[in-house]
Amino acid sequence: MTDLKAVAELLLAKDNIEILTHHYPDGDTLGSAYALCLSLQSLGKNVRVITSGSVGAKYDFLKEGVKAQSFEREYVVSVDVASPSLLGENREEYEGVIDLCLDHHGTNNIVAKESFIDPSSAAAAEIIFELIKELKAEITPQIANCIYTGVSTDTGCFRYTNTTSKSLRIAAELVELGADFADINFRMFELKTPAQLKLDCMVYNTLEYHYDGKLALIYVTTAMLESLGLTDDDVDGLASIPRRIEGVLLGLTLREKKDGTFKISARSNGNVNAAEFCKNFSGGGHPAAAGCTIEGELESVKEKLIKAAENVL
Amino acid sequence: MTDLKAVAELLLAKDNIEILTHHYPDGDTLGSAYALCLSLQSLGKNVRVITSGSVGAKYDFLKEGVKAQSFEREYVVSVDVASPSLLGENREEYEGVIDLCLDHHGTNNIVAKESFIDPSSAAAAEIIFELIKELKAEITPQIANCIYTGVSTDTGCFRYTNTTSKSLRIAAELVELGADFADINFRMFELKTPAQLKLDCMVYNTLEYHYDGKLALIYVTTAMLESLGLTDDDVDGLASIPRRIEGVLLGLTLREKKDGTFKISARSNGNVNAAEFCKNFSGGGHPAAAGCTIEGELESVKEKLIKAAENVL
Repeated sequence: MTDLKAVAELLLAKDNIEILTHHYPDGDTLGSAYALCLSLQSLGKNVRVITSGSVGAKYDFLKEGVKAQSFEREYVVSVDVASPSLLGENREEYEGVIDLCLDHHGTNNIVAKESFIDPSSAAAAEIIFELIKELKAEITPQIANCIYTGVSTDTGCFRYTNTTSKSLRIAAELVELGADFADINFRMFELKTPAQLKLDCMVYNTLEYHYDGKLALIYVTTAMLESLGLTDDDVDGLASIPRRIEGVLLGLTLREKKDGTFKISARSNGNVNAAEFCKNFSGGGHPAAAGCTIEGELESVKEKLIKAAENVL
Repeated sequence: MTDLKAVAELLLAKDNIEILTHHYPDGDTLGSAYALCLSLQSLGKNVRVITSGSVGAKYDFLKEGVKAQSFEREYVVSVDVASPSLLGENREEYEGVIDLCLDHHGTNNIVAKESFIDPSSAAAAEIIFELIKELKAEITPQIANCIYTGVSTDTGCFRYTNTTSKSLRIAAELVELGADFADINFRMFELKTPAQLKLDCMVYNTLEYHYDGKLALIYVTTAMLESLGLTDDDVDGLASIPRRIEGVLLGLTLREKKDGTFKISARSNGNVNAAEFCKNFSGGGHPAAAGCTIEGELESVKEKLIKAAENVL
């Protein structure tokens, strides 16, 4: 489908709706799901949101005002889910039974009865905003909060290159509709627990440079997390640290996983292609942000990465 | 004056114009000044920007395209200068000779022949944007960069409570006009030198909590700066660190100055009033962000602050 008015008409004709988010949900999939849920509930429908994987406590506020309703599902909508594998623990139950797929990923390969995919939207929440207008539901301050959270988190608070003038104009409307944007941005981008701040400091101490400062590398081990009583879920925003340093062309963040592997996040500046670099280790991604997984001990993983970096720097 | 059209007509009738920024200029005063300078130069006028105090190298890109012109000044405009003391080293020469004062600070007390003060603008650059439209000058990508820098830096990239829907709509227009927003935001908010990153780490190590984590305090000494070859100009963004910690109601950042005093930045969450707190030390500011200066040794300054905090926590 290419017409949100038609999508709205479709939804208005349905009831007993389940909305699926992607695995380990972020601000955009949750903001989109709860905004749509609240809007449809306000129109008298039974709706629930189904998530997969752990959901960060910082997103709890998005659920405010959502009514718990018991019903048998008749219609399934996915939001911001780009592929069946991203359904996570819900894949077995839901793959193939999705009625409506709403997404902004051009690579979307969800099989659904109807799909509305708009890659010109920086966030799925931008689509949901326009959809709620077509539904003629009232955009309450809480719904504005949900949509704002989606747009702001997916654009890095309007900093990433995916931000468009549409993202900013939607944000302007949401501010006028009462979105509590300063508080949301504070909680999404700034607030840290004392232990998370200690982790930042520990990680800063692991920083090492190679190739005249063109490569910067930091790491987090499971031992570091355990010493602070943190889990992998508490780690956020570390991947951007090495790329921020003047002169760095390739910034690598190594995160030790409980299975003994290291998850590598690569971020690049200038002409260095992070995705090409990650291909060395069967990974991939975008030119400026990519990832891969490597098995082994910290020192040998570091050595492999440093050696491979020589070709791209 | 309350009509930007009239301000534009006034400027169009003038030539040989000097534009004054405030002391130790930030992104808003510089972005505003260079945007206006470039626009007026494109209309065939002689214009130069006069700054005061050291200007961070990160702002160099704002000057791109500005022509160096030699002329005798006939008309003086100040942008984003809220009071005569903020003229800094230019005060003696320029106080009393300002023809046109353009500002967004409601507290502005500059004496000028004409003033246009709009406190509804989050940044002076928002006023300049509308003014350039009235001047009918072309808003080139470089002018868009200057204005974007002003709006983005004064609103903390649209995060601070002063951000309005107007700020966001202006940003949307600037993106369409070719502002290189992702690069600007990266350089304004993220890029650090290796030494600055080390300083962050040093400062994190000074973090101490009091009153069950409601007060958090960090400090920077001149010795720390010297050990890294940094000057006071390199210190940026530290004041927001303690406030970001979960549970903290009052976050204090102490910066030792070369004259032996400590400059204190106070940031608060919830109902704690940072300005009230700073009044204890003859300082002031806003409820959420205030400052003061205290003489003495680090330990005695800390002690005074911690003691005074008891009354507001």
